[in-house]
Amino acid sequence: MSELKQKIYSKIKADLADIELELSENLNPFLDLVSKTASHILFSGGKRLRPILTVLSAKLCGYSDHFAKRISTVFEYLHAATLLHDDLVDGASVRRGSPVAHSIWGNSTAVLVGDFLLARALSIASETRRPKVIKIISQITENMSQGEIHQLMRKGNIDLSESEYLEIITRKTAVLIQGSCRVGAILAKASEKNEKALSDYGFNLGLAFQMADDLLDYTANPVSLGKEIGADLKEGKLTLPVIRALGVANPEDQSQMKAIIQNEQFSAEEFRILVDMLNQYDGIKYTRKLAGERIDAAKAALSVFQPSEIRNLLNDIADYALEREV
Amino acid sequence: MSELKQKIYSKIKADLADIELELSENLNPFLDLVSKTASHILFSGGKRLRPILTVLSAKLCGYSDHFAKRISTVFEYLHAATLLHDDLVDGASVRRGSPVAHSIWGNSTAVLVGDFLLARALSIASETRRPKVIKIISQITENMSQGEIHQLMRKGNIDLSESEYLEIITRKTAVLIQGSCRVGAILAKASEKNEKALSDYGFNLGLAFQMADDLLDYTANPVSLGKEIGADLKEGKLTLPVIRALGVANPEDQSQMKAIIQNEQFSAEEFRILVDMLNQYDGIKYTRKLAGERIDAAKAALSVFQPSEIRNLLNDIADYALEREV
Repeated sequence: MSELKQKIYSKIKADLADIELELSENLNPFLDLVSKTASHILFSGGKRLRPILTVLSAKLCGYSDHFAKRISTVFEYLHAATLLHDDLVDGASVRRGSPVAHSIWGNSTAVLVGDFLLARALSIASETRRPKVIKIISQITENMSQGEIHQLMRKGNIDLSESEYLEIITRKTAVLIQGSCRVGAILAKASEKNEKALSDYGFNLGLAFQMADDLLDYTANPVSLGKEIGADLKEGKLTLPVIRALGVANPEDQSQMKAIIQNEQFSAEEFRILVDMLNQYDGIKYTRKLAGERIDAAKAALSVFQPSEIRNLLNDIADYALEREV
Repeated sequence: MSELKQKIYSKIKADLADIELELSENLNPFLDLVSKTASHILFSGGKRLRPILTVLSAKLCGYSDHFAKRISTVFEYLHAATLLHDDLVDGASVRRGSPVAHSIWGNSTAVLVGDFLLARALSIASETRRPKVIKIISQITENMSQGEIHQLMRKGNIDLSESEYLEIITRKTAVLIQGSCRVGAILAKASEKNEKALSDYGFNLGLAFQMADDLLDYTANPVSLGKEIGADLKEGKLTLPVIRALGVANPEDQSQMKAIIQNEQFSAEEFRILVDMLNQYDGIKYTRKLAGERIDAAKAALSVFQPSEIRNLLNDIADYALEREV
């Protein structure tokens, strides 16, 4: 565990334990199959980034009631629901080192348990009795499904532009992380200014987080990543490191890269060649730079708050989003 | 068109036109593929039973504002979302005489557009700014997914009991129709007693509606039904006509029925033999009797209201649920 990770972990440990308990209590599944499938995706080593952000955002605005932990589960359930459906849509085989749910229980179960988790999320959201919260959460859900549909439509398309990539990751990742933070602020009855600051923090962190995730597909050790080598490419997903390198490469290397990308059965050796080119043609560095700018923007947004331990912690989490290795 | 259908239609025509407009305006899809897929399921000749019940329930309680029509679309979107996912889960091929969405646009699109419609439904629900309404709707969604999962788990199981069947159709059909009526009453700020009456009306109507639907699989002309012959059985779904007949038949006929049911490739001739047995062994009559009792209960629930044109109309709709041929 890196030093930063350890530092963060020591400060959120107690909240994390409460969140874990809420996650299993709130799940309350009526059927054994739901329980097994939902637990497979929920309790397989997720980082709980989204619920922890809700809890910390609420605390930053002075609200430490346990209710924030209960409501924070909404964001983990939404996340788990989309993972179930996305793995199916993407034809993924491995997540966090385990076979994906649909390969164990079948596509039908993955579809229906995803629906159940989505419904569960919205049920818990309704416990806030705050129409504003509920509206935010249902709009996040709409955005996420649109982002996924957009990604599906552009699957395998070698011409995906950087702006389209940003639009997709905004909808499929950033709005959820933004919402996790914003709802924490709303639970705390924060001022508009503070709510906006946490919303901006979450939005920028969300973009950086997805960019870092997309980088890991090319830079991480696949064993520790718990996914196949080059999984994104095999699923036909063009992400920023590739989009950038394709845009910068000379015509000959561009052709070679395209040939590797478009052959979904590429070998480990071909993948290595591609990664070399992503390094050579600025794909890795550029993505890291853009993610770094988003991290800076996230931290800058928090400057409206007085210095405090919680603010430092949120800043550390932002830094960690980019340095993480899995 | 039957006389009763014509009578109902003449009285709801204007509301139906408004609902159609709201459905297409509220859909507001950001992507062409969403629009096409959602329209395929939404605008393919559905009866709009659920939204019309919301509008009429609100009117029965003295609320005629257009807002009821807007909110009524929630129930049609939820219905369409589950149809998209269920057709996929059931491996259906034809609905309302057209190929199912997943056979045209693929499984992934059907999953994601179903998610979008579900999210859209909850977004519109949040416009009521009524936590109670939102809670009801999110709980309906949970119930529906649980009903579908339950059905999936028992798929192909020849021993499904009548009480399990009732539990499944309660969750997958009755709670949504119940909610359509109940939310109409809540929008009208009806008394608890009147809200309960409409809730009971919807619940019983929902059960009767599903039983009638399950009957049609054995009694309707498949061309007018717009489905395959014996579609339910081919999808491994045991419904009340079969459950009852299996329970009553002599051992020899029971074996023959089981053999036909368990061979999902049964011929038209074998299906005819099965239908004869459903008639001989009370399956059809018993199901019609139970549905009839639910219709009576639905109408009885409305007796707390003064006689009025709207009350008559709701009674007529209940009667029509059982007499309908498609």
